[in-house]
Amino acid sequence: MPKYYLAKAQLSDLLTELGEGATLPAERELAERYGVARETLRLALRELLLEGRVRRQGRGTVVAGPKIEQPLSLGSYTEGVRRRGHVPGRALIGLERFAADAEAARELGVERGDFVWHLERVLLVDDERVGLESTYAPTALLPRMDQDFDPNGSFYAYAQEAGGLFSGGGEERIETVLATPREALLIGTPPALPMLLLHRRSWDPDGRPFERVRTLYRGDRFSFWTELKAER
Amino acid sequence: MPKYYLAKAQLSDLLTELGEGATLPAERELAERYGVARETLRLALRELLLEGRVRRQGRGTVVAGPKIEQPLSLGSYTEGVRRRGHVPGRALIGLERFAADAEAARELGVERGDFVWHLERVLLVDDERVGLESTYAPTALLPRMDQDFDPNGSFYAYAQEAGGLFSGGGEERIETVLATPREALLIGTPPALPMLLLHRRSWDPDGRPFERVRTLYRGDRFSFWTELKAER
Repeated sequence: MPKYYLAKAQLSDLLTELGEGATLPAERELAERYGVARETLRLALRELLLEGRVRRQGRGTVVAGPKIEQPLSLGSYTEGVRRRGHVPGRALIGLERFAADAEAARELGVERGDFVWHLERVLLVDDERVGLESTYAPTALLPRMDQDFDPNGSFYAYAQEAGGLFSGGGEERIETVLATPREALLIGTPPALPMLLLHRRSWDPDGRPFERVRTLYRGDRFSFWTELKAER
Repeated sequence: MPKYYLAKAQLSDLLTELGEGATLPAERELAERYGVARETLRLALRELLLEGRVRRQGRGTVVAGPKIEQPLSLGSYTEGVRRRGHVPGRALIGLERFAADAEAARELGVERGDFVWHLERVLLVDDERVGLESTYAPTALLPRMDQDFDPNGSFYAYAQEAGGLFSGGGEERIETVLATPREALLIGTPPALPMLLLHRRSWDPDGRPFERVRTLYRGDRFSFWTELKAER
Protein backbone atom coordinates (compact mmCIF):
# COMPACT_ATOMS: atom_id res chain seq x y z
CA MET A 1 0.00 0.00 0.00
CA PRO A 2 1.71 3.22 -1.13
CA LYS A 3 2.23 5.95 1.49
CA TYR A 4 0.13 8.54 -0.34
CA TYR A 5 -2.80 6.12 -0.28
CA LEU A 6 -2.64 5.72 3.49
CA ALA A 7 -2.58 9.52 3.80
CA LYS A 8 -5.56 9.65 1.43
CA ALA A 9 -7.51 7.19 3.59
CA GLN A 10 -6.77 9.28 6.70
CA LEU A 11 -7.75 12.47 4.87
CA SER A 12 -10.94 10.78 3.73
CA ASP A 13 -11.89 10.08 7.37
CA LEU A 14 -11.08 13.69 8.21
CA LEU A 15 -13.42 14.94 5.44
CA THR A 16 -16.30 12.87 6.83
CA GLU A 17 -15.59 14.25 10.30
CA LEU A 18 -15.38 17.90 9.17
CA GLY A 19 -18.50 17.79 6.98
CA GLU A 20 -19.50 19.57 3.75
CA GLY A 21 -18.23 23.13 3.30
CA ALA A 22 -15.59 22.98 6.05
CA THR A 23 -12.11 24.32 5.25
CA LEU A 24 -9.18 21.89 5.49
CA PRO A 25 -6.15 22.68 7.67
CA ALA A 26 -3.03 23.86 5.82
CA GLU A 27 -1.01 21.29 3.84
CA ARG A 28 1.99 21.71 6.10
CA GLU A 29 -0.10 20.93 9.17
CA LEU A 30 -1.75 17.89 7.54
CA ALA A 31 1.62 16.54 6.35
CA GLU A 32 2.91 16.77 9.92
CA ARG A 33 -0.22 15.20 11.39
CA TYR A 34 0.03 12.13 9.13
CA GLY A 35 3.84 11.98 9.16
CA VAL A 36 4.32 12.25 5.38
CA ALA A 37 6.24 14.58 3.06
CA ARG A 38 4.43 17.63 1.63
CA GLU A 39 4.74 16.04 -1.85
CA THR A 40 3.02 12.85 -0.65
CA LEU A 41 0.22 14.80 0.98
CA ARG A 42 -0.30 16.79 -2.24
CA LEU A 43 -0.63 13.58 -4.24
CA ALA A 44 -3.34 12.36 -1.87
CA LEU A 45 -5.15 15.71 -2.00
CA ARG A 46 -4.96 15.77 -5.79
CA GLU A 47 -6.76 12.43 -6.06
CA LEU A 48 -9.43 13.59 -3.63
CA LEU A 49 -9.80 16.69 -5.82
CA LEU A 50 -10.12 14.61 -9.02
CA GLU A 51 -12.74 12.47 -7.28
CA GLY A 52 -14.75 15.48 -6.16
CA ARG A 53 -14.31 14.85 -2.42
CA VAL A 54 -12.70 18.30 -1.95
CA ARG A 55 -12.67 21.47 -4.03
CA ARG A 56 -10.56 24.61 -4.18
CA GLN A 57 -12.14 27.76 -2.83
CA GLY A 58 -10.06 30.88 -3.11
CA ARG A 59 -6.68 29.82 -1.76
CA GLY A 60 -8.06 27.12 0.51
CA THR A 61 -9.46 23.62 0.09
CA VAL A 62 -12.96 22.77 1.33
CA VAL A 63 -14.94 19.57 1.80
CA ALA A 64 -17.16 19.09 -1.28
CA GLY A 65 -20.79 17.99 -1.24
CA PRO A 66 -22.00 14.74 -2.80
CA LYS A 67 -22.06 14.36 -6.60
CA ILE A 68 -25.20 15.58 -8.34
CA GLU A 69 -27.16 12.50 -9.37
CA GLN A 70 -28.77 12.95 -12.78
CA PRO A 71 -31.40 10.63 -14.25
CA LEU A 72 -30.60 9.12 -17.65
CA SER A 73 -33.75 10.37 -19.33
CA LEU A 74 -34.84 12.73 -22.08
CA GLY A 75 -34.49 16.43 -21.37
CA SER A 76 -33.40 16.04 -17.81
CA TYR A 77 -30.54 18.46 -17.10
CA THR A 78 -32.54 21.34 -15.63
CA GLU A 79 -34.91 19.15 -13.62
CA GLY A 80 -32.20 16.86 -12.32
CA VAL A 81 -30.15 19.77 -11.00
CA ARG A 82 -33.20 21.49 -9.45
CA ARG A 83 -34.30 18.32 -7.70
CA ARG A 84 -30.95 18.32 -5.88
CA GLY A 85 -31.58 21.85 -4.61
CA HIS A 86 -29.20 23.60 -7.00
CA VAL A 87 -29.80 26.35 -9.55
CA PRO A 88 -29.20 25.13 -13.13
CA GLY A 89 -28.07 27.46 -15.90
CA ARG A 90 -26.61 27.54 -19.40
CA ALA A 91 -24.22 30.00 -21.05
CA LEU A 92 -24.08 30.27 -24.84
CA ILE A 93 -20.76 29.59 -26.56
CA GLY A 94 -22.09 29.63 -30.10
CA LEU A 95 -24.81 28.71 -32.57
CA GLU A 96 -23.48 27.83 -36.01
CA ARG A 97 -24.74 26.35 -39.23
CA PHE A 98 -22.49 23.76 -40.88
CA ALA A 99 -22.69 21.30 -43.76
CA ALA A 100 -23.28 17.74 -42.48
CA ASP A 101 -20.42 15.27 -42.91
CA ALA A 102 -21.18 11.56 -43.43
CA GLU A 103 -21.56 10.88 -39.67
CA ALA A 104 -23.80 13.87 -38.91
CA ALA A 105 -25.91 13.04 -41.98
CA ARG A 106 -26.40 9.45 -40.84
CA GLU A 107 -27.18 10.42 -37.25
CA LEU A 108 -29.63 13.18 -38.14
CA GLY A 109 -31.28 11.50 -41.12
CA VAL A 110 -30.25 14.19 -43.61
CA GLU A 111 -28.15 14.16 -46.80
CA ARG A 112 -24.43 14.80 -46.65
CA GLY A 113 -23.90 18.51 -47.23
CA ASP A 114 -27.33 19.49 -45.84
CA PHE A 115 -27.15 22.22 -43.23
CA VAL A 116 -27.16 21.34 -39.56
CA TRP A 117 -27.23 23.55 -36.45
CA HIS A 118 -24.53 23.23 -33.84
CA LEU A 119 -25.58 24.82 -30.55
CA GLU A 120 -22.82 24.86 -27.96
CA ARG A 121 -23.49 25.82 -24.33
CA VAL A 122 -21.67 25.63 -21.02
CA LEU A 123 -23.73 23.99 -18.28
CA LEU A 124 -23.87 25.76 -14.95
CA VAL A 125 -24.75 24.70 -11.42
CA ASP A 126 -25.12 27.63 -9.01
CA ASP A 127 -23.15 29.75 -11.54
CA GLU A 128 -20.24 27.28 -11.52
CA ARG A 129 -19.22 25.73 -14.88
CA VAL A 130 -19.74 21.96 -14.73
CA GLY A 131 -20.21 20.77 -18.32
CA LEU A 132 -20.29 21.49 -22.01
CA GLU A 133 -23.22 20.58 -24.24
CA SER A 134 -23.29 20.39 -28.04
CA THR A 135 -26.70 19.99 -29.67
CA TYR A 136 -26.99 19.18 -33.38
CA ALA A 137 -30.24 19.46 -35.34
CA PRO A 138 -31.18 19.76 -39.04
CA THR A 139 -31.69 23.43 -39.99
CA ALA A 140 -34.58 22.36 -42.26
CA LEU A 141 -36.60 21.44 -39.15
CA LEU A 142 -35.81 24.67 -37.26
CA PRO A 143 -34.97 27.25 -39.96
CA ARG A 144 -35.23 30.36 -37.74
CA MET A 145 -33.29 29.06 -34.73
CA ASP A 146 -30.57 31.75 -35.08
CA GLN A 147 -33.28 34.42 -34.80
CA ASP A 148 -35.74 33.28 -32.18
CA PHE A 149 -34.09 30.69 -29.93
CA ASP A 150 -33.44 31.84 -26.35
CA PRO A 151 -29.90 30.57 -25.64
CA ASN A 152 -30.70 30.14 -21.93
CA GLY A 153 -33.83 28.14 -22.68
CA SER A 154 -34.61 24.50 -23.22
CA PHE A 155 -33.90 23.14 -26.71
CA TYR A 156 -36.78 20.66 -26.35
CA ALA A 157 -39.28 23.39 -25.47
CA TYR A 158 -38.08 25.40 -28.49
CA ALA A 159 -38.18 22.39 -30.84
CA GLN A 160 -41.79 21.73 -29.81
CA GLU A 161 -42.89 25.31 -30.12
CA ALA A 162 -41.04 26.38 -33.25
CA GLY A 163 -40.85 23.09 -35.15
CA GLY A 164 -43.70 21.00 -33.78
CA LEU A 165 -41.08 18.39 -32.87
CA PHE A 166 -41.90 15.97 -30.08
CA SER A 167 -39.57 13.35 -28.75
CA GLY A 168 -40.73 9.79 -29.26
CA GLY A 169 -37.71 8.12 -27.71
CA GLY A 170 -33.95 8.02 -27.83
CA GLU A 171 -30.77 6.32 -26.74
CA GLU A 172 -27.82 7.38 -24.65
CA ARG A 173 -24.27 6.12 -24.45
CA ILE A 174 -21.99 7.02 -21.55
CA GLU A 175 -18.21 6.79 -21.34
CA THR A 176 -15.31 8.38 -19.49
CA VAL A 177 -12.83 10.60 -21.38
CA LEU A 178 -10.25 13.28 -20.72
CA ALA A 179 -11.20 16.83 -21.68
CA THR A 180 -9.43 18.40 -24.65
CA PRO A 181 -7.49 21.62 -23.87
CA ARG A 182 -10.33 23.68 -25.41
CA GLU A 183 -12.96 21.86 -23.35
CA ALA A 184 -10.91 22.16 -20.14
CA LEU A 185 -10.59 25.89 -20.80
CA LEU A 186 -14.33 26.36 -21.47
CA ILE A 187 -15.35 24.35 -18.40
CA GLY A 188 -12.48 25.67 -16.28
CA THR A 189 -11.21 22.26 -15.13
CA PRO A 190 -7.73 20.80 -14.70
CA PRO A 191 -6.99 18.92 -17.97
CA ALA A 192 -6.38 15.56 -16.23
CA LEU A 193 -9.87 15.51 -14.70
CA PRO A 194 -11.84 12.45 -15.85
CA MET A 195 -15.09 13.56 -17.49
CA LEU A 196 -18.30 11.69 -18.24
CA LEU A 197 -19.26 11.99 -21.90
CA LEU A 198 -22.89 11.33 -22.83
CA HIS A 199 -23.92 10.77 -26.43
CA ARG A 200 -27.65 11.08 -27.01
CA ARG A 201 -29.78 10.62 -30.10
CA SER A 202 -33.49 11.20 -30.08
CA TRP A 203 -36.23 10.80 -32.62
CA ASP A 204 -39.83 11.87 -33.05
CA PRO A 205 -42.76 9.44 -32.58
CA ASP A 206 -42.34 8.32 -36.24
CA GLY A 207 -38.70 7.38 -35.61
CA ARG A 208 -37.32 10.36 -37.54
CA PRO A 209 -34.08 11.59 -35.83
CA PHE A 210 -34.14 15.27 -34.94
CA GLU A 211 -31.26 15.84 -32.54
CA ARG A 212 -27.91 14.53 -31.51
CA VAL A 213 -26.39 15.76 -28.25
CA ARG A 214 -22.87 15.36 -26.95
CA THR A 215 -22.53 16.44 -23.32
CA LEU A 216 -19.40 16.47 -21.26
CA TYR A 217 -19.90 16.52 -17.48
CA ARG A 218 -17.27 17.01 -14.79
CA GLY A 219 -16.67 13.53 -13.41
CA ASP A 220 -16.09 14.94 -9.92
CA ARG A 221 -19.53 16.61 -9.84
CA PHE A 222 -21.97 14.21 -11.52
CA SER A 223 -23.19 10.65 -11.45
CA PHE A 224 -25.99 9.17 -13.57
CA TRP A 225 -28.83 7.01 -12.50
CA THR A 226 -31.20 4.68 -14.32
CA GLU A 227 -33.95 2.25 -13.50
CA LEU A 228 -33.47 -1.37 -14.59
CA LYS A 229 -36.39 -3.42 -15.81
CA ALA A 230 -36.53 -7.17 -15.32
CA GLU A 231 -36.10 -8.99 -18.63
CA ARG A 232 -38.72 -11.61 -19.27
CA MET B 1 -3.29 24.81 -28.18
CA PRO B 2 -0.46 22.94 -26.40
CA LYS B 3 2.14 21.15 -28.56
CA TYR B 4 1.37 17.71 -27.14
CA TYR B 5 -2.24 18.12 -28.17
CA LEU B 6 -1.33 18.86 -31.79
CA ALA B 7 0.86 15.75 -31.76
CA LYS B 8 -2.05 13.82 -30.27
CA ALA B 9 -4.38 14.98 -33.08
CA GLN B 10 -1.82 13.89 -35.68
CA LEU B 11 -1.35 10.54 -33.93
CA SER B 12 -5.12 10.13 -33.83
CA ASP B 13 -5.28 10.50 -37.64
CA LEU B 14 -2.44 7.99 -37.94
CA LEU B 15 -4.35 5.45 -35.80
CA THR B 16 -7.41 5.71 -38.07
CA GLU B 17 -5.15 5.23 -41.10
CA LEU B 18 -3.31 2.22 -39.66
CA GLY B 19 -6.43 0.42 -38.40
CA GLU B 20 -7.11 -1.87 -35.41
CA GLY B 21 -4.29 -4.18 -34.36
CA ALA B 22 -1.52 -2.40 -36.32
CA THR B 23 1.75 -1.68 -34.51
CA LEU B 24 2.81 1.96 -34.16
CA PRO B 25 6.24 3.12 -35.39
CA ALA B 26 8.87 3.70 -32.67
CA GLU B 27 8.53 6.78 -30.45
CA ARG B 28 11.76 8.25 -31.78
CA GLU B 29 10.49 8.02 -35.34
CA LEU B 30 7.09 9.53 -34.47
CA ALA B 31 8.69 12.40 -32.53
CA GLU B 32 10.81 13.20 -35.60
CA ARG B 33 7.86 12.92 -37.97
CA TYR B 34 5.77 15.43 -35.98
CA GLY B 35 8.72 17.64 -35.01
CA VAL B 36 8.24 17.35 -31.24
CA ALA B 37 10.41 16.28 -28.30
CA ARG B 38 10.26 12.62 -27.16
CA GLU B 39 8.73 13.84 -23.87
CA THR B 40 5.94 15.66 -25.74
CA LEU B 41 5.22 12.64 -27.88
CA ARG B 42 5.03 10.43 -24.77
CA LEU B 43 2.47 12.78 -23.19
CA ALA B 44 0.29 12.50 -26.31
CA LEU B 45 0.64 8.71 -26.40
CA ARG B 46 -0.17 8.46 -22.69
CA GLU B 47 -3.51 10.25 -23.18
CA LEU B 48 -4.36 8.00 -26.15
CA LEU B 49 -3.55 5.05 -23.88
CA LEU B 50 -5.79 6.34 -21.06
CA GLU B 51 -8.58 6.85 -23.61
CA GLY B 52 -8.22 3.33 -24.97
CA ARG B 53 -7.19 4.39 -28.49
CA VAL B 54 -3.91 2.43 -28.25
CA ARG B 55 -2.73 -0.36 -25.98
CA ARG B 56 0.61 -1.84 -25.01
CA GLN B 57 1.41 -5.23 -26.48
CA GLY B 58 4.72 -6.72 -25.40
CA ARG B 59 7.19 -3.89 -25.90
CA GLY B 60 5.22 -2.21 -28.66
CA THR B 61 2.08 -0.08 -28.92
CA VAL B 62 -0.82 -1.17 -31.10
CA VAL B 63 -4.02 0.47 -32.33
CA ALA B 64 -6.87 -0.60 -30.01
CA GLY B 65 -10.34 -1.65 -31.13
CA PRO B 66 -13.49 0.28 -30.19
CA LYS B 67 -14.75 0.24 -26.61
CA ILE B 68 -17.06 -2.62 -25.68
CA GLU B 69 -20.58 -1.21 -25.48
CA GLN B 70 -22.54 -2.73 -22.61
CA PRO B 71 -26.29 -2.35 -22.11
CA LEU B 72 -27.38 -0.94 -18.76
CA SER B 73 -29.68 -3.84 -17.89
CA LEU B 74 -30.03 -6.61 -15.36
CA GLY B 75 -27.55 -9.48 -15.61
CA SER B 76 -25.90 -8.27 -18.76
CA TYR B 77 -22.13 -8.66 -18.48
CA THR B 78 -21.75 -12.02 -20.18
CA GLU B 79 -24.27 -11.32 -22.95
CA GLY B 80 -23.00 -7.83 -23.66
CA VAL B 81 -19.43 -9.04 -24.12
CA ARG B 82 -20.50 -12.01 -26.28
CA ARG B 83 -22.62 -9.83 -28.53
CA ARG B 84 -19.46 -7.85 -29.35
CA GLY B 85 -17.68 -11.04 -30.46
CA HIS B 86 -15.51 -11.41 -27.35
CA VAL B 87 -15.19 -14.23 -24.84
CA PRO B 88 -16.37 -13.18 -21.35
CA GLY B 89 -14.94 -14.72 -18.20
CA ARG B 90 -14.70 -14.30 -14.43
CA ALA B 91 -11.93 -15.19 -11.99
CA LEU B 92 -12.70 -15.63 -8.29
CA ILE B 93 -10.90 -13.42 -5.80
CA GLY B 94 -12.91 -14.44 -2.78
CA LEU B 95 -16.25 -15.35 -1.21
CA GLU B 96 -16.61 -14.16 2.37
CA ARG B 97 -19.30 -13.86 4.98
CA PHE B 98 -19.37 -10.62 6.96
CA ALA B 99 -21.65 -8.88 9.45
CA ALA B 100 -23.69 -6.14 7.76
CA ASP B 101 -22.87 -2.55 8.73
CA ALA B 102 -25.62 0.10 8.69
CA GLU B 103 -25.29 0.75 4.95
CA ALA B 104 -25.24 -2.90 3.87
CA ALA B 105 -28.20 -3.60 6.17
CA ARG B 106 -30.23 -0.79 4.64
CA GLU B 107 -29.35 -1.73 1.07
CA LEU B 108 -30.01 -5.43 1.49
CA GLY B 109 -33.05 -5.17 3.73
CA VAL B 110 -31.47 -7.06 6.64
CA GLU B 111 -30.69 -6.14 10.26
CA ARG B 112 -27.36 -4.63 11.19
CA GLY B 113 -25.06 -7.51 12.19
CA ASP B 114 -26.89 -10.07 10.02
CA PHE B 115 -24.54 -12.06 7.81
CA VAL B 116 -24.02 -11.03 4.22
CA TRP B 117 -22.03 -12.68 1.40
CA HIS B 118 -19.34 -10.72 -0.40
CA LEU B 119 -18.41 -12.36 -3.69
CA GLU B 120 -15.48 -10.67 -5.44
CA ARG B 121 -14.51 -11.55 -9.00
CA VAL B 122 -12.25 -10.13 -11.70
CA LEU B 123 -14.05 -9.66 -15.03
CA LEU B 124 -12.26 -10.95 -18.11
CA VAL B 125 -12.58 -10.25 -21.83
CA ASP B 126 -10.63 -12.70 -24.00
CA ASP B 127 -8.60 -13.60 -20.87
CA GLU B 128 -7.63 -9.97 -20.27
CA ARG B 129 -8.59 -8.39 -16.93
CA VAL B 130 -11.02 -5.51 -17.52
CA GLY B 131 -13.00 -5.07 -14.33
CA LEU B 132 -13.67 -6.01 -10.73
CA GLU B 133 -17.10 -7.02 -9.46
CA SER B 134 -18.31 -7.20 -5.86
CA THR B 135 -21.67 -8.85 -5.25
CA TYR B 136 -23.37 -8.63 -1.84
CA ALA B 137 -26.34 -10.79 -0.84
CA PRO B 138 -27.94 -11.84 2.49
CA THR B 139 -26.61 -15.27 3.57
CA ALA B 140 -30.12 -16.12 4.87
CA LEU B 141 -31.36 -16.21 1.26
CA LEU B 142 -28.46 -18.33 -0.06
CA PRO B 143 -27.13 -20.23 2.98
CA ARG B 144 -25.05 -22.80 1.04
CA MET B 145 -23.38 -20.42 -1.41
CA ASP B 146 -19.87 -21.21 -0.12
CA GLN B 147 -20.48 -24.89 -0.86
CA ASP B 148 -22.35 -25.09 -4.16
CA PHE B 149 -21.82 -21.84 -6.09
CA ASP B 150 -19.69 -22.17 -9.25
CA PRO B 151 -17.38 -19.12 -9.08
CA ASN B 152 -17.24 -18.90 -12.88
CA GLY B 153 -21.00 -18.98 -13.21
CA SER B 154 -23.74 -16.40 -13.19
CA PHE B 155 -24.88 -15.17 -9.77
CA TYR B 156 -28.42 -14.64 -11.10
CA ALA B 157 -28.67 -18.20 -12.39
CA TYR B 158 -27.47 -19.47 -9.00
CA ALA B 159 -29.82 -17.20 -7.04
CA GLN B 160 -32.75 -18.55 -9.05
CA GLU B 161 -31.77 -22.16 -8.75
CA ALA B 162 -30.57 -22.27 -5.15
CA GLY B 163 -32.73 -19.58 -3.57
CA GLY B 164 -35.75 -19.27 -5.84
CA LEU B 165 -34.83 -15.60 -6.21
CA PHE B 166 -36.04 -13.81 -9.31
CA SER B 167 -35.25 -10.24 -10.20
CA GLY B 168 -38.24 -7.93 -10.33
CA GLY B 169 -36.32 -4.75 -11.13
CA GLY B 170 -33.43 -2.65 -10.00
CA GLU B 171 -31.52 0.57 -10.33
CA GLU B 172 -28.04 1.45 -11.43
CA ARG B 173 -25.83 4.48 -10.77
CA ILE B 174 -22.75 5.18 -12.86
CA GLU B 175 -19.80 7.44 -12.05
CA THR B 176 -16.14 7.85 -12.91
CA VAL B 177 -13.50 7.20 -10.24
CA LEU B 178 -9.80 6.42 -9.94
CA ALA B 179 -8.90 2.86 -8.99
CA THR B 180 -7.45 2.27 -5.52
CA PRO B 181 -3.95 0.69 -5.49
CA ARG B 182 -5.52 -2.70 -4.60
CA GLU B 183 -8.03 -2.44 -7.44
CA ALA B 184 -5.38 -1.32 -9.94
CA LEU B 185 -3.27 -4.31 -8.91
CA LEU B 186 -6.14 -6.79 -9.24
CA ILE B 187 -7.21 -5.43 -12.63
CA GLY B 188 -3.65 -4.77 -13.78
CA THR B 189 -4.18 -1.15 -14.83
CA PRO B 190 -2.08 1.98 -14.43
CA PRO B 191 -3.41 3.72 -11.25
CA ALA B 192 -4.26 6.99 -13.06
CA LEU B 193 -6.65 5.25 -15.46
CA PRO B 194 -10.20 6.63 -15.14
CA MET B 195 -12.62 3.81 -14.35
CA LEU B 196 -16.38 3.55 -14.64
CA LEU B 197 -17.98 2.49 -11.37
CA LEU B 198 -21.48 0.99 -11.51
CA HIS B 199 -23.57 0.59 -8.38
CA ARG B 200 -26.52 -1.72 -8.79
CA ARG B 201 -29.31 -2.74 -6.46
CA SER B 202 -31.95 -5.24 -7.45
CA TRP B 203 -35.03 -6.60 -5.78
CA ASP B 204 -37.43 -9.48 -6.26
CA PRO B 205 -40.95 -9.02 -7.71
CA ASP B 206 -42.22 -8.15 -4.19
CA GLY B 207 -39.68 -5.33 -3.88
CA ARG B 208 -37.49 -7.22 -1.40
CA PRO B 209 -33.80 -6.36 -2.06
CA PHE B 210 -31.58 -9.39 -2.64
CA GLU B 211 -28.34 -8.10 -4.09
CA ARG B 212 -26.10 -5.10 -4.29
CA VAL B 213 -23.34 -5.04 -6.90
CA ARG B 214 -20.40 -2.69 -7.22
CA THR B 215 -18.56 -3.12 -10.52
CA LEU B 216 -15.49 -1.28 -11.64
CA TYR B 217 -14.83 -1.29 -15.41
CA ARG B 218 -11.73 -0.05 -17.24
CA GLY B 219 -12.77 3.31 -18.70
CA ASP B 220 -10.60 2.74 -21.75
CA ARG B 221 -12.40 -0.51 -22.62
CA PHE B 222 -16.10 0.02 -21.87
CA SER B 223 -18.98 2.34 -22.57
CA PHE B 224 -22.59 1.87 -21.41
CA TRP B 225 -25.75 2.21 -23.39
CA THR B 226 -29.38 2.72 -22.49
CA GLU B 227 -32.66 3.34 -24.22
CA LEU B 228 -34.53 6.54 -23.34
CA LYS B 229 -38.30 6.57 -23.13
CA ALA B 230 -40.30 9.67 -23.94
CA GLU B 231 -41.85 11.15 -20.79
CA ARG B 232 -45.52 11.87 -21.12
